[in-house]
Amino acid sequence: MFDLKTYLKDVRTTVDEQLNHYLHAQQPATRLSHAMTYSVMAGGKRLRPVLCIAAAEIVGGRRDAVLPLACALEFIHTYSLIHDDLPAMDNDDKRRGKPTCHVQFDEATAILAGDALLTLAFEILAEAGSRCASDDQHRWLLTIAKIASAAGFKGMIEGQMRDMAFEGTVIPQGELESLHRLKTGKMIEISVASGALVSGASARQQQLLHSYAQNIGLAFQVADDILNVQGDPERLGKATGTDQTRGKNTYASLLGLSGAEALAGQLVNNALKALDAFDHGADSLRAIARYVIERKR
Amino acid sequence: MFDLKTYLKDVRTTVDEQLNHYLHAQQPATRLSHAMTYSVMAGGKRLRPVLCIAAAEIVGGRRDAVLPLACALEFIHTYSLIHDDLPAMDNDDKRRGKPTCHVQFDEATAILAGDALLTLAFEILAEAGSRCASDDQHRWLLTIAKIASAAGFKGMIEGQMRDMAFEGTVIPQGELESLHRLKTGKMIEISVASGALVSGASARQQQLLHSYAQNIGLAFQVADDILNVQGDPERLGKATGTDQTRGKNTYASLLGLSGAEALAGQLVNNALKALDAFDHGADSLRAIARYVIERKR
Repeated sequence: MFDLKTYLKDVRTTVDEQLNHYLHAQQPATRLSHAMTYSVMAGGKRLRPVLCIAAAEIVGGRRDAVLPLACALEFIHTYSLIHDDLPAMDNDDKRRGKPTCHVQFDEATAILAGDALLTLAFEILAEAGSRCASDDQHRWLLTIAKIASAAGFKGMIEGQMRDMAFEGTVIPQGELESLHRLKTGKMIEISVASGALVSGASARQQQLLHSYAQNIGLAFQVADDILNVQGDPERLGKATGTDQTRGKNTYASLLGLSGAEALAGQLVNNALKALDAFDHGADSLRAIARYVIERKR
Repeated sequence: MFDLKTYLKDVRTTVDEQLNHYLHAQQPATRLSHAMTYSVMAGGKRLRPVLCIAAAEIVGGRRDAVLPLACALEFIHTYSLIHDDLPAMDNDDKRRGKPTCHVQFDEATAILAGDALLTLAFEILAEAGSRCASDDQHRWLLTIAKIASAAGFKGMIEGQMRDMAFEGTVIPQGELESLHRLKTGKMIEISVASGALVSGASARQQQLLHSYAQNIGLAFQVADDILNVQGDPERLGKATGTDQTRGKNTYASLLGLSGAEALAGQLVNNALKALDAFDHGADSLRAIARYVIERKR
């Protein structure tokens, strides 16, 4: 029986150690590196690193070989949170139960800390790629390009633009789905895909893992929308009910709570189905899929 | 006799075409891609692409092979200008004679356009590297890591932090020099170094070009400080006298105008000296060095 709790704890410990290592490579510490560390170490589920490492292990990759990749994904995620929280964007004061970066430091520092985390991610990726056997370097370059594409103006950043633009306007479900695919889905997809890709996954394995990732990416967003309505602010570490106040388009507002729950369940089932071809080695990804919708309880 | 004007015009045309190509790869255009294009195409000297291409050509590299690199450097430069201009940072309304990105669009869009340009730079770099012969891929990965390092929290971003932190405080010349080396110097150095590196420059060539780049990087900053005092706002496309108003540390305030001019001249001479070992092929870099201090007239 796969023990998700132990697995998550184990992966998170390894990832956190390595994140700390990267952040403290710069000595002496500066206000900038303090702000970067503050936001990265403020907690968080480390979902993207966990997905990356689990996908790598499933296709026979080594955890230490994809650790730089897992950390880079977390740095990109944290940068996106810092910038999304800024007064000019979502203007959030709290994140993971703590003051957001621009509240704890100041706005300029928060903008630059985000910039620096994004830049550091690519430094780590390129450096890790350069240390690989020359046969693997092409795969790393392709992976770096794909991560940048998922994070960029054809991916995550366009998602944030649309999320802001659509506030106060009711949009159809198809539109909401493509918004979320851009804003969070593509980075979740590349977290799984990149771990598998640099570990030498076959085309068939990549295809199945892509289907898994697409489904849990969307399920994760639907679950987030549900949590924003009925979650416990204390446990979540952030305010709830904010989506409604802002007139955000959510699955909860569009489908109602029970409709959203049914959709999340269906997406997780699709994700599990995509893993049918894998043996018990894929139990980590199976458990993560279930966890995505169960974490609300 | 080397004709700098024609050379610059020629390189800029090629670079601008390619920048446009990258920016319009995303169809249909979005508000985000409009903002990115607006800032990238607002003019600018394309100094970093020119340095990159000239350095590549000097060591026998092909212009089209380093064109993605040259464009990535310009995207990183433009992102840094957009973010530096933000209200939370230098709060500049005008850049290159036009409203800054956050004035023309809005603050959120400007932050995201900057993020997107930075991300696009790495996508272009990794993609170009992945298309290289496998022997060259290691060099590309090293180059990407070096560019990220120069642009990141140990380089340009830390420079911007210090520039803001030191406003209103008089700092010694050594401190000012390391601020500028971080804020602008490292990216100018890597512009030269990266063009040479991916073109297969020898260690000796890289060393000489590094010395050249260090000197013109600083000379460029000193010249900028002088222009801020005595330049023509109309020709510069931005306000002058702003450094003094803000209590910025500049070479002009520290050494006086004539002291700053003497320093700039000396730095350019050092840069030219570093090129002594090169033949007429290096006339482009020689002319650029002179241009750095002559552009004020």
